[in-house]
Amino acid sequence: MFKKNQDKCTIFALGGLGEIGKNMYVIQYGQDIVVVDSGLKFPEEDMLGVDVVIPDISYLLENRDKVRGILITHGHEDHIGGLPYVLKQLNVPIYGTKLTLGLIEAKLREANLLGETKRILINADSEVKLGKLVATFFATNHSIPDSVGVCIDTPEGLIVHTGDFKFDHTPVNNQYADLHQMADIGSRGVLALLSDSTNAERPGFTPSEKSVGVELQEVFRNADQRVVVATFASNIHRIQQVIEAAYKTNRKLAVMGRSMVNVVSIATELGYLNMPDGMLIEPDEVNKLPADRVVILSTGSQGEPMSALTRMARSTHKKVDILPGDTVIIAATPIPGNEKFVGRTVDELFRLGANVIYGPGSVSGVHVSGHGSQEELKLMLNLMKPKYFIPIHGEYRMLRHHGLLAEGIGVEKENIFIMDNGDTVEIQNGVARRGSKVQSGNVLIDGLGVGDVGNIVLRDRKLLSQDGILVVVVTLSKQEGKILSGPDIISRGFVYVRESEGLLDEANRIVSSTLNKLMNENVNEWASLKTHVKEALGRFLYEQTRRRPMILPIIMEV
Amino acid sequence: MFKKNQDKCTIFALGGLGEIGKNMYVIQYGQDIVVVDSGLKFPEEDMLGVDVVIPDISYLLENRDKVRGILITHGHEDHIGGLPYVLKQLNVPIYGTKLTLGLIEAKLREANLLGETKRILINADSEVKLGKLVATFFATNHSIPDSVGVCIDTPEGLIVHTGDFKFDHTPVNNQYADLHQMADIGSRGVLALLSDSTNAERPGFTPSEKSVGVELQEVFRNADQRVVVATFASNIHRIQQVIEAAYKTNRKLAVMGRSMVNVVSIATELGYLNMPDGMLIEPDEVNKLPADRVVILSTGSQGEPMSALTRMARSTHKKVDILPGDTVIIAATPIPGNEKFVGRTVDELFRLGANVIYGPGSVSGVHVSGHGSQEELKLMLNLMKPKYFIPIHGEYRMLRHHGLLAEGIGVEKENIFIMDNGDTVEIQNGVARRGSKVQSGNVLIDGLGVGDVGNIVLRDRKLLSQDGILVVVVTLSKQEGKILSGPDIISRGFVYVRESEGLLDEANRIVSSTLNKLMNENVNEWASLKTHVKEALGRFLYEQTRRRPMILPIIMEV
Repeated sequence: MFKKNQDKCTIFALGGLGEIGKNMYVIQYGQDIVVVDSGLKFPEEDMLGVDVVIPDISYLLENRDKVRGILITHGHEDHIGGLPYVLKQLNVPIYGTKLTLGLIEAKLREANLLGETKRILINADSEVKLGKLVATFFATNHSIPDSVGVCIDTPEGLIVHTGDFKFDHTPVNNQYADLHQMADIGSRGVLALLSDSTNAERPGFTPSEKSVGVELQEVFRNADQRVVVATFASNIHRIQQVIEAAYKTNRKLAVMGRSMVNVVSIATELGYLNMPDGMLIEPDEVNKLPADRVVILSTGSQGEPMSALTRMARSTHKKVDILPGDTVIIAATPIPGNEKFVGRTVDELFRLGANVIYGPGSVSGVHVSGHGSQEELKLMLNLMKPKYFIPIHGEYRMLRHHGLLAEGIGVEKENIFIMDNGDTVEIQNGVARRGSKVQSGNVLIDGLGVGDVGNIVLRDRKLLSQDGILVVVVTLSKQEGKILSGPDIISRGFVYVRESEGLLDEANRIVSSTLNKLMNENVNEWASLKTHVKEALGRFLYEQTRRRPMILPIIMEV
Repeated sequence: MFKKNQDKCTIFALGGLGEIGKNMYVIQYGQDIVVVDSGLKFPEEDMLGVDVVIPDISYLLENRDKVRGILITHGHEDHIGGLPYVLKQLNVPIYGTKLTLGLIEAKLREANLLGETKRILINADSEVKLGKLVATFFATNHSIPDSVGVCIDTPEGLIVHTGDFKFDHTPVNNQYADLHQMADIGSRGVLALLSDSTNAERPGFTPSEKSVGVELQEVFRNADQRVVVATFASNIHRIQQVIEAAYKTNRKLAVMGRSMVNVVSIATELGYLNMPDGMLIEPDEVNKLPADRVVILSTGSQGEPMSALTRMARSTHKKVDILPGDTVIIAATPIPGNEKFVGRTVDELFRLGANVIYGPGSVSGVHVSGHGSQEELKLMLNLMKPKYFIPIHGEYRMLRHHGLLAEGIGVEKENIFIMDNGDTVEIQNGVARRGSKVQSGNVLIDGLGVGDVGNIVLRDRKLLSQDGILVVVVTLSKQEGKILSGPDIISRGFVYVRESEGLLDEANRIVSSTLNKLMNENVNEWASLKTHVKEALGRFLYEQTRRRPMILPIIMEV
């Protein structure tokens, strides 16, 4: 008799609303859980005061005995940035390639976690046993070197997680995606493919990173003064091409911005950057060389307020003044939400007289995406020929588009699962269906607080940010039924006090008369007094100003 | 002897940083000032709690005797939205075309200003005397009907202000731009051209509005359930095309969203919308008709939280439930800063099972810009052949690009003036040069307050929004040198209080011990006590939480 599997394979992403499966993916078979990636995301505009956001890992903590390890696909923040928080609660082994571990270790060192965590180096040929599961890897192209996809061999079949990828047929440093290994995996038969949907809305092919190098050399050659290049610190291929363009045009390279300095140092040390001798100069040397001998590699491609490029644009950088005729290259496209910041930086640079090269890569030529477009997504689908398809890494609309692409290449419509974070797919005896939801969501990190900022705190911050606060302090004698001192009104973020004396005086009178009236009627429970003051004052202020500040009545009694 | 002009012509824009000359332009010759447009803009992300922003008109108020009137180029908010605020301070005649005045009158009626303001109807053939200046007009194409450019005849020569424009060679309702009149103006000789730079970064030609109509009909025809179209309420040409597509596919039209209902009503009344009899249905009738007989025209194309489409997407709309298989067309591109809101709406609609058509017009086909691209800007430059060129309407980088286009068609480089708001150009005896700056900037409007929210209030709102506030109340007896009651600590937006009792208890102890120590040392000036409490508490909270809430010590004395 054919023996049926007692256990099932469960697949799901952890995180809150928004990009799905980007930060953390979970594959469970029976008693064994494998986690893929452990990233963070940046707060949405309504998460006031929040620094970063990580997935809620309650499910993993409740099943901590089963978690065999975290496999990291590549070293970007949205895939590794959650590790310091997660490892504090769940100290399991981390598996990553050389550069990925190098970046993780810098992060864990900062968090004082380097001593107590277990990090295991893998490469694209490694095989890792994780309970009943076996993980293997395949090299991919992405905007950071040493990226891999993950293949998990389960008793149900192979589950493939692509990580972030594109197909670059002329990669920098000859780091080719391993088409043959992907073809082999496909030939073995893929039960379920989980594939990157970031560019699923974009037709065609994403251009090769090499195309950026050609353009950079052209710009460097035509520039007769200094060149500043801003890009993502982790885009080591891009940085290599800046180095090459500098070398070919006889310029020296200065590196500015903390994260850029860090990454260049780690990547050089680990052999991922080829820096010609004498190429690197200190920031202090920039002004000692002729302008046409200098390239500055800088952070700030997203218009981040404190970054090196933003400070140059605002003329507040300590080492570099942008001079008329300098060339500034912004080799990145704005992440959604950052468009205005980047625009402002460009405006400031133009005001200083710089020649600024910016805009979508298709126009500027100095940026290409690290994610595959529709033709590449179809190529991956055709290499893997999965039975089940789960689009990951993207907003819901992108997953939808990716699903349509999969249908187009012949995956059965009912075998395509578009899932939000926390939704599960269960596969047993080769049959997949939706399972029950697991606990999932955002954990907000503000300073040292992990998860202590919730809806109430955010609601208050939102209220405070809109119309400020009024604190009303008054001391009562309930026995005598009269006000002993106050009311004093202190406001912050409501009106400009010096120009609103009349309004605040009148507010004062309203508080007094409200309290006197209540005490005359023998109403003297605190809660009731406070509520009446709030209401009367709120109504008056709204009538006068159409604003609704938070009102905090403080009633003291002697 | 050749008589020289004693007076000069001065040209400048009023407003703050950001888009330049969009909201209000000023042309002065001697004792006569003409204002072009009076718009508003929406607050930047750091203007917390602010509703709208208008230009600082101090210059006009100081010269109120000279202001002859405000010429309005078209009826968009960023050109008319400031009128209710400006007219309250400076009641001068407004000149506008029929639709433009219709939209302005609705606005003034709401502000109770209709009775006391003077509105003068013009058309493209009107001539208006404004002191020594004479204004004439020319018809343009834009994303709202009845748009005009303005030509001001000064003793120095002709000043041309294009307003917002594109060249649409197949306009809806045959409202052609008047190429011949523009050519005539150019033949008379243009001293200075002020031209719309919104799309100066965009190569080529902006497609005709008609191309959207073709695509809409195609989508309507293929939809077998309801169709929802969201677009800007003021885009009456677009609305006309929705009506036509509905008519051709045998659907009835329901209009949803306050501004859409208003504009459709005004435009129909004034004859700008051609609505077939029986086409319009009430929102209540939507559910009574078969799904394939209905089109819903809706606000919400920018993902605005309270708009009709957003409510449909969140399943909170009173009349319309989006059902699987419905088609939703977002016929607009996100204004910078709104990308995330629109993305979320699209995601929600997909989750409900709708087929959503969205994205850049070049991909979706259901949107085209109302502003001319580079070839159209060159066409305008070549028609006008100005001596001096002042790019307007755009961020600084766009003006820069527009300046390069002007150089390209042969305007002398030194005759091109890239100016920020408040910068002036003075032309006397045919020679232009930069003049001194005039007072200019943003006036923030929050509720009924015009200009009372300034840097201090915004700084406080920013602080409050990041880490909240702690109010510390304590009553002292200075004579006895001891604390009589408290300290009580009340926090809002800082931590979730129920889970932070230990932290707040410790904070309490720190306040007590700080005060007791000071009083023992006979320090008892209020200011000093407050400062010490703030410092000690701030330091403790930062150590414990890495947050810096606003701290408000309130010390009462009996």
